[in-house]
Amino acid sequence: MDISPRLPPFNENVAKRYIDAAVQTSGLPEFLGIRTTFVEPGRMRVQIPVDPKLVTRIGNMHGGVLSALCDHVLGSVCYLHMPDGYWAATTEFKLNLLAPVSSGTVTAEATIIAMTRTTAVVRIDVTNDGRPCCAAQGTVLILPPRQPKPTG
Amino acid sequence: MDISPRLPPFNENVAKRYIDAAVQTSGLPEFLGIRTTFVEPGRMRVQIPVDPKLVTRIGNMHGGVLSALCDHVLGSVCYLHMPDGYWAATTEFKLNLLAPVSSGTVTAEATIIAMTRTTAVVRIDVTNDGRPCCAAQGTVLILPPRQPKPTG
Amino acid sequence: MDISPRLPPFNENVAKRYIDAAVQTSGLPEFLGIRTTFVEPGRMRVQIPVDPKLVTRIGNMHGGVLSALCDHVLGSVCYLHMPDGYWAATTEFKLNLLAPVSSGTVTAEATIIAMTRTTAVVRIDVTNDGRPCCAAQGTVLILPPRQPKPTG
Amino acid sequence: MDISPRLPPFNENVAKRYIDAAVQTSGLPEFLGIRTTFVEPGRMRVQIPVDPKLVTRIGNMHGGVLSALCDHVLGSVCYLHMPDGYWAATTEFKLNLLAPVSSGTVTAEATIIAMTRTTAVVRIDVTNDGRPCCAAQGTVLILPPRQPKPTG
Repeated sequence: MDISPRLPPFNENVAKRYIDAAVQTSGLPEFLGIRTTFVEPGRMRVQIPVDPKLVTRIGNMHGGVLSALCDHVLGSVCYLHMPDGYWAATTEFKLNLLAPVSSGTVTAEATIIAMTRTTAVVRIDVTNDGRPCCAAQGTVLILPPRQPKPTG
Repeated sequence: MDISPRLPPFNENVAKRYIDAAVQTSGLPEFLGIRTTFVEPGRMRVQIPVDPKLVTRIGNMHGGVLSALCDHVLGSVCYLHMPDGYWAATTEFKLNLLAPVSSGTVTAEATIIAMTRTTAVVRIDVTNDGRPCCAAQGTVLILPPRQPKPTG
Repeated sequence: MDISPRLPPFNENVAKRYIDAAVQTSGLPEFLGIRTTFVEPGRMRVQIPVDPKLVTRIGNMHGGVLSALCDHVLGSVCYLHMPDGYWAATTEFKLNLLAPVSSGTVTAEATIIAMTRTTAVVRIDVTNDGRPCCAAQGTVLILPPRQPKPTG
Repeated sequence: MDISPRLPPFNENVAKRYIDAAVQTSGLPEFLGIRTTFVEPGRMRVQIPVDPKLVTRIGNMHGGVLSALCDHVLGSVCYLHMPDGYWAATTEFKLNLLAPVSSGTVTAEATIIAMTRTTAVVRIDVTNDGRPCCAAQGTVLILPPRQPKPTG
């Protein structure tokens, strides 16, 4: 069953920026070590190393890492099909954890399954060294440019 | 409509430990600054400050923080009704983001709505300085004690 | 933690109509025997009898009945806070089945936990003769009046 | 990214039975007109006609039909990989409605993305005459044979 959706125009600038500045350098994404490794129309792949600091004393990676990773790539993939200046806000998502993660690399691949100019639905497949460990699905709201908050 | 569930026995030791060692001191919970502020049978409340490092350049807290917080408290509340040595593994959850968060304190209250000796369903209400900002619902699997992974 | 949301104005006409014409008389709601039993601002309760025709040969009610019931009340509760002529479209929801249902009455209570003029998030508690059997949470889009489709 | 899961053995008898008795002849599945149109290891497709009785006065098919269809195929696909006599109980699922449905045929394709002898996670893609209209994801519990409830 082919369910490739029709998407708004691909934004090459955004795609290039993601790849050029692949490593996130602030906040939660930096703490997790999120790296963008692949983009194409409707799809983005990000990766994190399973840093020992993220592993609980049970020996498994904290589940919050996977949910934060899903949330991150869920919004990010939408920017590939948004005009400059617009922004993506996750409104909801759901995830199933399929297997525990304790080492290696985690890769999350987000695929847009439906998108208009105002909203998108995205699915995410997460693997740990090639083995499925998480599957997610969620909704993103696309919002027009707004003035940045004044600082200070 | 009263839907208070019947729960397995309350584990006072666990409850005391949560409150005594309220501040998480490792990994993602430490990075987020998660603090346990309240426990009672079937319910737990945790809190984080909206640290500027968690706020994106749009001016809002990274959504991944809320999902990680939900994942954290979703599992933690179950330990209140589990025998010592057992562990809780989140198998799935879903969240709705209700309003952006940009400052102040975020409080997540988890309530067990159904629990047996092997599984639990939990709801989470998250507020930002008293205003609802997120609502979640998920499932936890309760697992018997296992040997810790050998180190080194 | 009080999380009562601020809601758009209560529409007394709609509330009265729900109660006056409590029994659904067409389509899936009629087949399921859905009956509105209670409305108040932000909340609606509907009920179905567990008709033997809905019980599978395993002896349990078909899960699709509970999901259809949740979908029904998820949208319906929003009409209580919408201007005449507007309509509510469910965009997503999630449910957890807590216990099998095999006889008696099923009651679903929907509570709006956040609502603006364009969208609402709703939680649903479903009980079977007083025992929790399902918990759901979902999103509704509020749309302005549109011309009905021409018939024939 | 190949995420084909390893599944328990395919049960040819069950598959044959689904195809031979493709049309559901009782309860909610009969009311909806559910028809099994395709099975293969890890995958099942079911179909319903958009009967006018299922269309609301707004002109769209009742959302509860799609959720009931998802619930139905979510459990059914698992029987393809279960020993005779075992049964599948949906524990939770989530769906996103992508486009309204008003006529034609609705096809739901369920794909098992992870399965052990006790549990499975399944994704569902629903199309209306080839156009995506719903995407779902959920969990099924696999239970050992039990005595049927005595009748009368």
